[in-house]
Amino acid sequence: MYIGIDLGGTNIAVGLVDEKGNIIHKDSVPTNASRHYTEIIKDMAMLSLKVIQDSGYTMKDVKSVGIGSPGTPDNERGVLVYANNLNFRNVPMRAEMQKYIDLPIHIENDANCAALAEAVAGAAKDAEHSVAITLGTGVGGGIIIHKKIYSGFNYAGGELGHVVIHMNGEPCTCGRKGCWEAYASATALIRQTREAMKKNPDSLMNKMVEGDLDKVSGKTAFDAAKQGDQTAQAVVDTYIKYIAVGLANVINIFQPEIVVIGGGICKEGEYLLKPLRQMVYEETYSKDIRQPEIRTALLGNDAGIIGAAMLGR
Amino acid sequence: MYIGIDLGGTNIAVGLVDEKGNIIHKDSVPTNASRHYTEIIKDMAMLSLKVIQDSGYTMKDVKSVGIGSPGTPDNERGVLVYANNLNFRNVPMRAEMQKYIDLPIHIENDANCAALAEAVAGAAKDAEHSVAITLGTGVGGGIIIHKKIYSGFNYAGGELGHVVIHMNGEPCTCGRKGCWEAYASATALIRQTREAMKKNPDSLMNKMVEGDLDKVSGKTAFDAAKQGDQTAQAVVDTYIKYIAVGLANVINIFQPEIVVIGGGICKEGEYLLKPLRQMVYEETYSKDIRQPEIRTALLGNDAGIIGAAMLGR
Repeated sequence: MYIGIDLGGTNIAVGLVDEKGNIIHKDSVPTNASRHYTEIIKDMAMLSLKVIQDSGYTMKDVKSVGIGSPGTPDNERGVLVYANNLNFRNVPMRAEMQKYIDLPIHIENDANCAALAEAVAGAAKDAEHSVAITLGTGVGGGIIIHKKIYSGFNYAGGELGHVVIHMNGEPCTCGRKGCWEAYASATALIRQTREAMKKNPDSLMNKMVEGDLDKVSGKTAFDAAKQGDQTAQAVVDTYIKYIAVGLANVINIFQPEIVVIGGGICKEGEYLLKPLRQMVYEETYSKDIRQPEIRTALLGNDAGIIGAAMLGR
Repeated sequence: MYIGIDLGGTNIAVGLVDEKGNIIHKDSVPTNASRHYTEIIKDMAMLSLKVIQDSGYTMKDVKSVGIGSPGTPDNERGVLVYANNLNFRNVPMRAEMQKYIDLPIHIENDANCAALAEAVAGAAKDAEHSVAITLGTGVGGGIIIHKKIYSGFNYAGGELGHVVIHMNGEPCTCGRKGCWEAYASATALIRQTREAMKKNPDSLMNKMVEGDLDKVSGKTAFDAAKQGDQTAQAVVDTYIKYIAVGLANVINIFQPEIVVIGGGICKEGEYLLKPLRQMVYEETYSKDIRQPEIRTALLGNDAGIIGAAMLGR
């Protein structure tokens, strides 16, 4: 058994996970991210102990604790070097956790944990090499090579969202211009949807949100396109093209057996994947050979817990 | 001892290489690429036997033969799936070679071989993970993870030149638009140089080639810039910026200890690397942590032979 902790800006989620990546029991508490790190980490430890107890297991059944965190963790030193939305800098996460729990503590980036979870127990279970992309507020990336997370010599690799696909293009939160994230994230889709709505006041999308641009979500354009709205269809087509350009880049670089697409947008399923596959395969480099498969993520919000737990396997 | 064969469009180069990546003896013959593959492969085998003999060693001293080839080799089947400039399609390279030489035969993409050579005996000798970029006719890439070539499940990965950095931009030989190769190759630099010369007939560059655009090379803009020509300096600055955008992408993805830059352009040394490093480090994602080093390749044209030989290590 392994404890997996998904440390988010809003909630701390903890699960007891078996060898195969099944969650036996899970629970969560609010992060209250403005607190000092010692308090947040104490809550992570206390919830871990509670989850073990509530599940009917004991500490002796647990081999290790894994923590998936936003930002750049350094697992060698056990330190969270930097996490923007938690206001953490050089937090000694392992040492703090070990005040409460005497087990090996592993820390890893949350996008990498999600990728590992899908590789162990989800959509990329059959793949030796896989890449997971999360289209959410940003574009997260996790690289799995030989079933293990690859994150470079400084644990900061795998930032697939921060690959420039359009030089001097849209500004990105990272400081670069034209990152994939600035075109293919849900945030970018919402921006693109709003721009199209402003230019086309007659679009069904404006009726759907009663003219309130604050109500636009990542679903707005997809929903209206399915009802035949041309403006929405154009937004969707362009957005899928943006995803495809970056995905073809990822494939030309990694040629993994399986690419996993996660995040809210992946609920669109084949409506998204069918045109996406076609655009990607038109662009990838080697057409005469077997192509990677593009699948949607299977584990949803549990991926963070499962991946963090699997760090100790 | 290992035999390394660098199969190029112009020459076949063969070397006997020791365990550490030192070339003991080497030789070459013209490829005459229009011939049938059986003839070309026979020449590769005959030259290998000659190199062993001329070096004073015998077949018993040689553990394996490695072949670095353009295109997409499938080492599992021993087949060169596709090589554009050799007009090879599904060539049974291993079986053909073994008609003449009864040793294990490994085949690999030439850019990957160059990367492996630099990782074993060159600029990335100290790195566990490294990436090698060759700025030549195209932009070649080789990915080394844990000292081994990574090329994906179908041996077609590592095509770092075919990462789109400018959507809908310059057409690339691969069919995509806006690939890094279309901006950062020596071919692209020559195009950029000619365009600037046409717009600025007074530039020193026009005098240097006596107004003959056919004489423009990858050195023209660098040479004129060093003599203070403003037009040439602008070409160089923009070209280095193009290299930097793609290199920051590579670093955000891989965070390797060392990035090796090869190809003719790397002869510019620090004149190229100094501004390049500055531009790259301004763009990479994680600024609070140790950054990858950017170095020029050390092995030059020998990298192909050495890397091919090291496939058998």
